[in-house]
Amino acid sequence: MIETLSEQRCHGGIQGFYRHQSAYCGSMRFAVYQPPQAGHGPCPVLYFLAGLTCTEETATIKAGAQRLAAELGLVLVMPDTSPRQTGIDGATGDWEFGEGAGFYVDATLAPWSARFQMHSYIALELPALIAAHFPVDASRSGIFGHSMGGHGALTVALKHPRQYRSVSAFAPIVASSQVPWGRKAFPRYLGTDENAWAAYDACELVRQQTLPGTILIDQGEADQFLEAQLKPELFDQACAEAGQSLLLRRHVGYDHGYYFIASFIDDHLRHHAKALGCA
Amino acid sequence: MIETLSEQRCHGGIQGFYRHQSAYCGSMRFAVYQPPQAGHGPCPVLYFLAGLTCTEETATIKAGAQRLAAELGLVLVMPDTSPRQTGIDGATGDWEFGEGAGFYVDATLAPWSARFQMHSYIALELPALIAAHFPVDASRSGIFGHSMGGHGALTVALKHPRQYRSVSAFAPIVASSQVPWGRKAFPRYLGTDENAWAAYDACELVRQQTLPGTILIDQGEADQFLEAQLKPELFDQACAEAGQSLLLRRHVGYDHGYYFIASFIDDHLRHHAKALGCA
Repeated sequence: MIETLSEQRCHGGIQGFYRHQSAYCGSMRFAVYQPPQAGHGPCPVLYFLAGLTCTEETATIKAGAQRLAAELGLVLVMPDTSPRQTGIDGATGDWEFGEGAGFYVDATLAPWSARFQMHSYIALELPALIAAHFPVDASRSGIFGHSMGGHGALTVALKHPRQYRSVSAFAPIVASSQVPWGRKAFPRYLGTDENAWAAYDACELVRQQTLPGTILIDQGEADQFLEAQLKPELFDQACAEAGQSLLLRRHVGYDHGYYFIASFIDDHLRHHAKALGCA
Repeated sequence: MIETLSEQRCHGGIQGFYRHQSAYCGSMRFAVYQPPQAGHGPCPVLYFLAGLTCTEETATIKAGAQRLAAELGLVLVMPDTSPRQTGIDGATGDWEFGEGAGFYVDATLAPWSARFQMHSYIALELPALIAAHFPVDASRSGIFGHSMGGHGALTVALKHPRQYRSVSAFAPIVASSQVPWGRKAFPRYLGTDENAWAAYDACELVRQQTLPGTILIDQGEADQFLEAQLKPELFDQACAEAGQSLLLRRHVGYDHGYYFIASFIDDHLRHHAKALGCA
């Protein structure tokens, strides 16, 4: 059961916003763009995971992805980044933890474990929901994301290596168990045993499991979080050691925001379209 | 003197937000996108006027215009839609009047006349400011807008027929003195003598002054304001009577929002680029 919040014509297709009751996270919102081709049959589907403080609206409004998705015949799914209105004490008021900052993990510690199950939500529940309600060919799925959502895209794909044919990220957190954002959030979601953190660290995961195809990562050189939080060189190193094909592009002058994403979103859509067999 | 609020790399150019002290309106904000070509010499410049409730951020974030502007070498200027923080009693709290609803007129009645001088701001002050601070070729200027801003683009261009080489609009108010929005705002800005309103009514203006070239207008058929407020058929009729070339396109299923604008923004940029002699 999904509730339609709004649907608007966009580039010949439909940009919609929806709400449903998740078994993992409670009431959740997500956005779906259906290209014109979806009116004639199932289309490949591409999931975008947004970053800290963002919602299902952020990339939908700011990334400008619908134009080329309409041309390529790609369904875009943009979920919210975390559970909302959880009522958990301490879940709001800190942009780096709690609501808006779920870090795409399945929390194991109370009280967070009751609602903060974003990994299972993204990897298991949402794809089934999308397949049941939208004209998608789930055998042709890709995933990408930004910052915390880039971490989400990489870790979800690496933990479910047969589920996505293509993966990419903008300015992702690649070594979540090593950087301040992860080291602040993971103890509360996952406990203080750092071994549990490795299951949500892209650098650790790629050493255990590589993916077919090339992972595309774009990174701005003027990104204010580059040195302390993102450290793409660690993933570059891990991929090299693991034999994972990676295309890491560094762009002079670009920062962490959506003008950066909008500047390179077309390259990402084409990267996925190629792997997903779009026309 | 302009104050730089932010500048971010975008599609190889610079998306900036700025503030200055306007002689007409007080402290005003505006956005400028400089395409990569602006680093090598003056570029043609295209002004976008936004609608009710909007600011300089709205189209900058939502329209996705920078991608093709970067390709065509067009500078984009997106000003705020009205004076702000005017302190005038009654200037806030009504989305159809006052701040955010300046209707691009020079108010003649107190207290509005002290700050609500958007027509002169857009037509006179802003172009001079842009020419002084950004690499533009002001002899190649175009103007477009949305809704109230479509009204602004049409009326500013028709009142200054040599200033812009190209004009277009999304879902514009074309008969402001006849429709509820205008009939509500104009008495307070301009007085109850309806003769004064004609100076800001596109249908009236085009009967006195036609423009070279074709005016492009896109209108969604599912626009919630189409029948009561927009009435493009009145402008179609006025242009036919006046001998003004008009391309009015009606699009099934599209509403009044920015997904509509984003869907056709490229057509508008190409319309202007052709008239402005872009490469």
